[in-house]
Amino acid sequence: MITPGNAAPSRMLEAPTIRQHSLTLGKNSRSQIKSQKPLILWMTGLSGAGKSTVADRIEHRLWQCGHHTMILDGDNLRFGLNKDLTFTDAGRVENIRRTAEVAKLMLDAGLIVICSLISPFRRERTEARQLVGADEFLEVFVDAPLDECMRRDPKGLYARALAGQIPNFTGISSPYEPPDAPEIHLRTDMADVDTLAGQVLDELRRRGIIACVP
Amino acid sequence: MITPGNAAPSRMLEAPTIRQHSLTLGKNSRSQIKSQKPLILWMTGLSGAGKSTVADRIEHRLWQCGHHTMILDGDNLRFGLNKDLTFTDAGRVENIRRTAEVAKLMLDAGLIVICSLISPFRRERTEARQLVGADEFLEVFVDAPLDECMRRDPKGLYARALAGQIPNFTGISSPYEPPDAPEIHLRTDMADVDTLAGQVLDELRRRGIIACVP
Repeated sequence: MITPGNAAPSRMLEAPTIRQHSLTLGKNSRSQIKSQKPLILWMTGLSGAGKSTVADRIEHRLWQCGHHTMILDGDNLRFGLNKDLTFTDAGRVENIRRTAEVAKLMLDAGLIVICSLISPFRRERTEARQLVGADEFLEVFVDAPLDECMRRDPKGLYARALAGQIPNFTGISSPYEPPDAPEIHLRTDMADVDTLAGQVLDELRRRGIIACVP
Repeated sequence: MITPGNAAPSRMLEAPTIRQHSLTLGKNSRSQIKSQKPLILWMTGLSGAGKSTVADRIEHRLWQCGHHTMILDGDNLRFGLNKDLTFTDAGRVENIRRTAEVAKLMLDAGLIVICSLISPFRRERTEARQLVGADEFLEVFVDAPLDECMRRDPKGLYARALAGQIPNFTGISSPYEPPDAPEIHLRTDMADVDTLAGQVLDELRRRGIIACVP
């Protein structure tokens, strides 16, 4: 018989009317029936570096092994949860904060969560990391040189940013702060998508997150 | 061999720089390995009506059957994703909007999502419903008379609201609009929590969402 555990603690918030509810089930019990260790893979990098493409391949290969996953894609979230946010620094910060909070909820649901968003600022990536346990967050630097991203320009955005048509475009008119010590560093100008996804899966195996060889 | 499907469609947003990414996996493939039909159970009702208690029991009984669930509790969300929001009407509307968007993401992840929040306004509950398919959203009215909720007052909040210490308190100084046609109507003043959870599970069986008898 399985028994639930790891319920969220009850504590008072400063605000007067809300109190955290203890739930019978927690992260451990929800992940237990998925036979996996929940995790956040946080993929950061320039537009055009290949974040979404690699994230999609990782998810598909994890799924083929029976793992329970979800992708939180920065662009897709801006059609729903984050549709009220701008691309100013403040809008980007809140975009990352909300994404990290949703990733944490999905971690609590027992999933392997793949976050794919430019997330240009070190500070917000650090805050995302600090929301969860040290062994529950892996930063993946999806790295391609800016000139390579500009050459690829899959959506024609760099051309328009350079023409002054898009304000606050990361790498052109808004900064990108590369990770200092990402757990995984992918050079997308040096390998194909299957190789890159394989590098991530190898690291997950090495850390005991997954056992299969997808 | 299982094959993925139900990928999100690619479409352009009005904003110039973002485009929805097509993902290989979609709701169907993610729920397929969970052997279940994803669903949102939206539990609405007054403070003290018993939403969290019944939600917790439903989740535990679904989990005992091997179902993959997550609870989105309105109070708990205000410690994280929604910690920037107030209890004004505007804050409550945004609270419900974000919760509904996160529930939709979890539906996409293949989960049975139990939302437990006062959600006092009909309009926002309708908007939450309209985010997803007609057979993916069940509104559960967790109903107890206001005087019964005030008598229970498990957190001492009604007493403080009546003393004028809590502004915008639903049922006292802020309206609650009961559902017109909830799929499930629970009278928590007339049955115990196991009976009430059983009523919800019976309805899920009747609709073919679950097969087991937890």
